[in-house]
Amino acid sequence: MKNDIILLGHGSGGRLSHQLLDEVIIPILSQVERCGQNDAAILNGITGDQIAFTTDSYVVDPLIFPGGNIGDLAINGTVNDLAMSGARPLAISVGLILEEGLAMEDLCIILVAMKAAADRAQVKIVTGDTKVVPRGKGDKIFINTSGVGVFDHALRPAGHRAKPGDRVLINGGIGEHGMAVLASREGLDLQTPIVSDTAPLNFMVQELLARQGDAVHVLRDPTRGGVATTLKEIALQSAVDICLDESSLPINAVVAGACAILGLDPLFVANEGKLLAVVRADAATAALKTLHNCEFGAEARIIGEVIEPSAGRLMMRTSIGGLRALEMLAGEQLPRIC
Amino acid sequence: MKNDIILLGHGSGGRLSHQLLDEVIIPILSQVERCGQNDAAILNGITGDQIAFTTDSYVVDPLIFPGGNIGDLAINGTVNDLAMSGARPLAISVGLILEEGLAMEDLCIILVAMKAAADRAQVKIVTGDTKVVPRGKGDKIFINTSGVGVFDHALRPAGHRAKPGDRVLINGGIGEHGMAVLASREGLDLQTPIVSDTAPLNFMVQELLARQGDAVHVLRDPTRGGVATTLKEIALQSAVDICLDESSLPINAVVAGACAILGLDPLFVANEGKLLAVVRADAATAALKTLHNCEFGAEARIIGEVIEPSAGRLMMRTSIGGLRALEMLAGEQLPRIC
Repeated sequence: MKNDIILLGHGSGGRLSHQLLDEVIIPILSQVERCGQNDAAILNGITGDQIAFTTDSYVVDPLIFPGGNIGDLAINGTVNDLAMSGARPLAISVGLILEEGLAMEDLCIILVAMKAAADRAQVKIVTGDTKVVPRGKGDKIFINTSGVGVFDHALRPAGHRAKPGDRVLINGGIGEHGMAVLASREGLDLQTPIVSDTAPLNFMVQELLARQGDAVHVLRDPTRGGVATTLKEIALQSAVDICLDESSLPINAVVAGACAILGLDPLFVANEGKLLAVVRADAATAALKTLHNCEFGAEARIIGEVIEPSAGRLMMRTSIGGLRALEMLAGEQLPRIC
Repeated sequence: MKNDIILLGHGSGGRLSHQLLDEVIIPILSQVERCGQNDAAILNGITGDQIAFTTDSYVVDPLIFPGGNIGDLAINGTVNDLAMSGARPLAISVGLILEEGLAMEDLCIILVAMKAAADRAQVKIVTGDTKVVPRGKGDKIFINTSGVGVFDHALRPAGHRAKPGDRVLINGGIGEHGMAVLASREGLDLQTPIVSDTAPLNFMVQELLARQGDAVHVLRDPTRGGVATTLKEIALQSAVDICLDESSLPINAVVAGACAILGLDPLFVANEGKLLAVVRADAATAALKTLHNCEFGAEARIIGEVIEPSAGRLMMRTSIGGLRALEMLAGEQLPRIC
């Protein structure tokens, strides 16, 4: 491209738009169907009479952070949302909102990360759209990814299916994505940098469902709002109480330290490569072993259980033996974390 | 809601986010599956082994214009992209990027328009996502809609299927959406206001495919870049030449006047309720009649034909008998028109 920054004309639908598509976006993403060619992509390989469908927009600041950037974050996030429903991610759409003046180089870095993340998760980027807004009316780049997944089985883990006695599992340390972004944005001088956990969890879910089957009652990825908010939602949906065991929570020491300094509770900090699995008690140990054998699952733990009575509460047994009630955050803990 | 404007906390994933969802977004859209409940919507009623999948982001300025607002525009646009592929629109996702400080009332007006547009097109809003960016990092509201459509037949009109001899049809006046937005944004003092043509075209397409079947070779909605850019794309994809007849082009007199004053060519101005159909010659008259009998089709016309030689050119026979070559616009004619 002759232009090294994004111009308003790149969003016009005319020659500059076609150049951006033909010379930058399509060569990098490579799998994308030229969105100017037909108005919709046609997906083959649909099996059965159900599909999963999800959408997420990404506005993270900064665009690039230890462990990833807005591009792989956007792909992994949508892959994970599909995976949590039990579906196999099939296809992803990419909607870009670019601010006039964005460096073409930054756009390329982000697109390259999207392509790599899609390849890693074995999902295709099939359609897209690019808009450009004038300087000062956006913030460099916002990305929407929507996704379609298909079901290879009859399993449908869902938020309302937690039962008393079930165990709550997580595949590793909490709060890493949120703290990585925050430390990067605020220029925190940490001896060991915190690295985002952004990762595709679809193969782990596939493995868990293949081995533990319908003993897997709920799968959710604790993104915005963190582990506590997600478990509180599950408690409300399933009309059960959930009790966490504080001493079991896997928290990286640097994350714990940074949270302490900033007065943040890691239970409410976003994760982007973690899943919470609510599993029938008799299958919990086997499920833990399954997670341990997966990429991204080496640090998996059982962190709590579903208890009665059933009032939609989330509690935590603290390290000193007390019981603490956890509620959703009232306001904004960490803005623009994803 | 106690808050009459959007706060950063509405994007936190915590209690304010849930309030916005439970008290504003879900009650208005009503069909939406609570996106906080499960990470993906599960769609039933998938038929066959193919689906259509599309995405578009909307950044139109102003948000509200004669004939519509960003909300119905976003629904109709994605409904139309699905329809042009021959699919029946089934489900739509809504990704909102809100700027801190957006009036809750404006958000409600837009959501109400989305719901009404979805109902009119008989498509369901099934999943969504809401992000909030700080003041000055966005522009009130950006909307992404992605959509899934199913096929009730084997017809697949597509951009590469235009053949010499085919006729080019349009369902009514050109340039109305772009000029409505521009006139509204620039405060043009027109005696008769220009009204956007934003409309769902899925039932018209359904009718056209039911009656003219595989004689319908290409269907496209001429949005950004207008009729000329879209036909130029079809000419290139099909490797044919297309010749328009200037005297046949339906152009509302007020649109023509406003274009003349501003030095704009209506052939390059966006439409949001128009389709171009490239139809086999022997079915063109019947197709025109089908369009005439549809809502949004009363002003349909045959405006050109596909000719040989086949060099991917777009030409226009002018009113005074000459031939003018039409190319894609080089830069930005009208920014933020959709």
